[in-house]
Amino acid sequence: MTALTLGDLARALGGEVLGDAQTRVENVATLESADNRAIAFLMHERFLAQLHASRAGAVILATRHRDATALPRIACANPHAYFARVAALLHPTPLPAPGVHALASVHAGATLEPNASVGPYAVIGDGARIGEGAVIGAHAYVGVGATVGARTRLWPGVVLYHGCRVGERCQLHSGVVVGADGFGNAWEQGDDGGHWLKVPQVGRAIIGDDVEIGANTTVDRGAIEDTVIEQGVRLDNLIMIAHNVRVGAHTAIAACTGIAGSTRIGKRCRIGGAVGISGHLTITDDVEIGGKTMITKSITKAGSYSGSYPFEDTRLWRRNAVQIRHLDELVQQVKQLEKRLAQLERKGA
Amino acid sequence: MTALTLGDLARALGGEVLGDAQTRVENVATLESADNRAIAFLMHERFLAQLHASRAGAVILATRHRDATALPRIACANPHAYFARVAALLHPTPLPAPGVHALASVHAGATLEPNASVGPYAVIGDGARIGEGAVIGAHAYVGVGATVGARTRLWPGVVLYHGCRVGERCQLHSGVVVGADGFGNAWEQGDDGGHWLKVPQVGRAIIGDDVEIGANTTVDRGAIEDTVIEQGVRLDNLIMIAHNVRVGAHTAIAACTGIAGSTRIGKRCRIGGAVGISGHLTITDDVEIGGKTMITKSITKAGSYSGSYPFEDTRLWRRNAVQIRHLDELVQQVKQLEKRLAQLERKGA
Amino acid sequence: MTALTLGDLARALGGEVLGDAQTRVENVATLESADNRAIAFLMHERFLAQLHASRAGAVILATRHRDATALPRIACANPHAYFARVAALLHPTPLPAPGVHALASVHAGATLEPNASVGPYAVIGDGARIGEGAVIGAHAYVGVGATVGARTRLWPGVVLYHGCRVGERCQLHSGVVVGADGFGNAWEQGDDGGHWLKVPQVGRAIIGDDVEIGANTTVDRGAIEDTVIEQGVRLDNLIMIAHNVRVGAHTAIAACTGIAGSTRIGKRCRIGGAVGISGHLTITDDVEIGGKTMITKSITKAGSYSGSYPFEDTRLWRRNAVQIRHLDELVQQVKQLEKRLAQLERKGA
Repeated sequence: MTALTLGDLARALGGEVLGDAQTRVENVATLESADNRAIAFLMHERFLAQLHASRAGAVILATRHRDATALPRIACANPHAYFARVAALLHPTPLPAPGVHALASVHAGATLEPNASVGPYAVIGDGARIGEGAVIGAHAYVGVGATVGARTRLWPGVVLYHGCRVGERCQLHSGVVVGADGFGNAWEQGDDGGHWLKVPQVGRAIIGDDVEIGANTTVDRGAIEDTVIEQGVRLDNLIMIAHNVRVGAHTAIAACTGIAGSTRIGKRCRIGGAVGISGHLTITDDVEIGGKTMITKSITKAGSYSGSYPFEDTRLWRRNAVQIRHLDELVQQVKQLEKRLAQLERKGA
Repeated sequence: MTALTLGDLARALGGEVLGDAQTRVENVATLESADNRAIAFLMHERFLAQLHASRAGAVILATRHRDATALPRIACANPHAYFARVAALLHPTPLPAPGVHALASVHAGATLEPNASVGPYAVIGDGARIGEGAVIGAHAYVGVGATVGARTRLWPGVVLYHGCRVGERCQLHSGVVVGADGFGNAWEQGDDGGHWLKVPQVGRAIIGDDVEIGANTTVDRGAIEDTVIEQGVRLDNLIMIAHNVRVGAHTAIAACTGIAGSTRIGKRCRIGGAVGISGHLTITDDVEIGGKTMITKSITKAGSYSGSYPFEDTRLWRRNAVQIRHLDELVQQVKQLEKRLAQLERKGA
Repeated sequence: MTALTLGDLARALGGEVLGDAQTRVENVATLESADNRAIAFLMHERFLAQLHASRAGAVILATRHRDATALPRIACANPHAYFARVAALLHPTPLPAPGVHALASVHAGATLEPNASVGPYAVIGDGARIGEGAVIGAHAYVGVGATVGARTRLWPGVVLYHGCRVGERCQLHSGVVVGADGFGNAWEQGDDGGHWLKVPQVGRAIIGDDVEIGANTTVDRGAIEDTVIEQGVRLDNLIMIAHNVRVGAHTAIAACTGIAGSTRIGKRCRIGGAVGISGHLTITDDVEIGGKTMITKSITKAGSYSGSYPFEDTRLWRRNAVQIRHLDELVQQVKQLEKRLAQLERKGA
């Protein structure tokens, strides 16, 4: 258990200490659950009531809220980011020892930089390169000629297909599959009624630096050119990135979203969960998309876009949904009413 | 091949035998596919015609249907549950032998209770605890300090991150990932245009007793406090449970559903497939949600809720969907018509 | 690096060479990215401008476009399929050597046909059969009594549960789980408020010949009878095929789609991404379904069906979506207007 004083934190991370700089904190907590050994943070002023009721040992808050509590505190420009750094100091993620586990399988033709760690039953293929301080978890698979950058962590069971590349300081969580074949099929008509012919997927999947990918997300290799996830991207769990897609730097995508082939997503986009984006589209930079929206056309203007169907009591939903099937008829009907009414009005005039 | 008589079944499971109690059955089947060595069940009266045509050796049915057939039969209160128990007797799932496989990697600091089974290439970390009779499948990973309860089964390739806990008598299917990092990111503005900073996820994922989790479902660890799946919950495949979510006891969730961070789901809810539930909501007990619904507000009243868009012929869909973009205009137009018509009516009066 | 002349290609694959048959090509590329060592193809006439600007060494095109360029070229009936075959010749996928890796675990009761390849840490259970030339990747799991057909490839980490079968010449990508338990639960009311009882899933999952399944897709075993994927089917990533489903031959399903239990899909269907299909439905042959559609009724007529909600600027979406909750009221209101107007018109006449 690490313990640090507010003074220690300010020396390491900046910010202004108010109250006793010798206050020691051992763990992070929410304002509500914190006890006097914990440090919490104020995310937003709508939580001021929770701040006032908090039993936290110390609090991180924005400079404009520096006087909102008498608790020992650190005032700073970005409390969320500051809290993230404190949490990393107080709760370091367990890191396996460097070196190759006796039960790992590393091909003689692979290159491991110093301090790389390879876990039990991991497989590193011929020609693969593992960067300095990288962590290849148990059961992870790094295919022939694939590359893992320095200080990147593949959690247990990650699969990186042949020839694919992951940059530096990335985190790929368990179940992530990078570089499986994209969905490429050519239809062949024939006497049998027709069948699919596989189109070989000869591109790669390339992941930039500082990318995090959540559990069970898949990033397919390109059909001809590469699928690319640019630096700083955040992908949540169970996301599908199809072949030839490019996701721009610092874009964040929430879980269960699927992006179809050859679509290009801009930089700093924020895409909600369970969104679907059709193939061959271009989404410009700084676009926000609401949860469960289906995007069927390119978006050329930064802004916020949505399109999920409203939920309601199931009986009402049945009544309203059935009318959608007649919505165009309703529109025509209203147009007719409009005309007839105008005619009556003219008569009446 | 096990074979049991109806008398054997009634002694073990209760119910009333009608017809020859010496009738032997070897396997379960549907009413339609059963032959005279099979036992089938009547789920609902809409299948009475299939009962009458059935060649089953025996049938399980509700007491009120006790005379609906001349076949040897067992009448009971809940035929579906009775059938489940008969299937478990006639078709036991293959269970690996107890003991640690020679090719498993069990840390010296791990604790294994008697009769636990650890399969080939499984990894059990330092400080982990495996309960009595638990089955850790091939390639499964139990992280540092994680706990697996008695008689729980991790199927091949399940990943349980460090510090997480799974209760007793659970089934976690292949590809399940419990305890990967939640999607926690703080935005830092800067000269580079801005970037994400990872927020360490220091909570755990806690799974109660008697929970079943389907293939490739992910349950993230909590950001600060824990993500909790209460006892008796049923999660289907490819579900996303985000950080800090709590799923109440005996709730069942169908495949491809995603629940965003910090949402609390009540007890005994029945949530359809491909549902999306936004973050920070509260869904009360005994709520039913239809497939593909997006839930954007808390639900405080038990009941049934839905909201999926109706499908139709693609040409009609194009016509109707385009009008939704003008629905509010249509409403305003109808209001205007209403006013003008009222005016005419007053004139005419 | 393989290099082939257009003459070599035409001898192997047919088609008519126009221009220099000695032109050598080393790799495939797009019309835009190709240099003079690459061969590209013209998919559709809307890319004719790209053809005219292309620096490709050679081009594959349809016979009707044989004179659309002066580049060395091959004219054929189906350029997409021709291109697929050329790509397979120029870019063969790395194939592990036949034989059982020293670090694999193959049960003495398993049968391996000649030239099968079993990778490091793969597990083959008792009674399993691996066909001639099949490739079982690293960390793949073939359960007790399961069968893998000739020349089928299980990529690293694929899980095939006990008793399930995969046909010949299939590709199952990493993270695919075939044969996990379906979502079978019987509700038992009781003094505890009720709980679920697991219904054993005693059927199998059966995959036909020439099937490809994308990363992290799940195909559950049947509840009583089998789940069946017929020959030539294409499943993309992160798809859920529930218990007892049957997918007809040569049907293609895009990523993130879920098909609920006991539904039957016809042959040669083309199902978009993120589609949901309810349980116990029948979809006939040759049906096309648009992305993100929810199918709630059987489809008995071949054709194209859709039903996704249109997206738009978030502010407009809020206005329009709220009106959907009152759509049925709007319809009633328009009907009343209609009546009142007709009455006025009669008066006026």
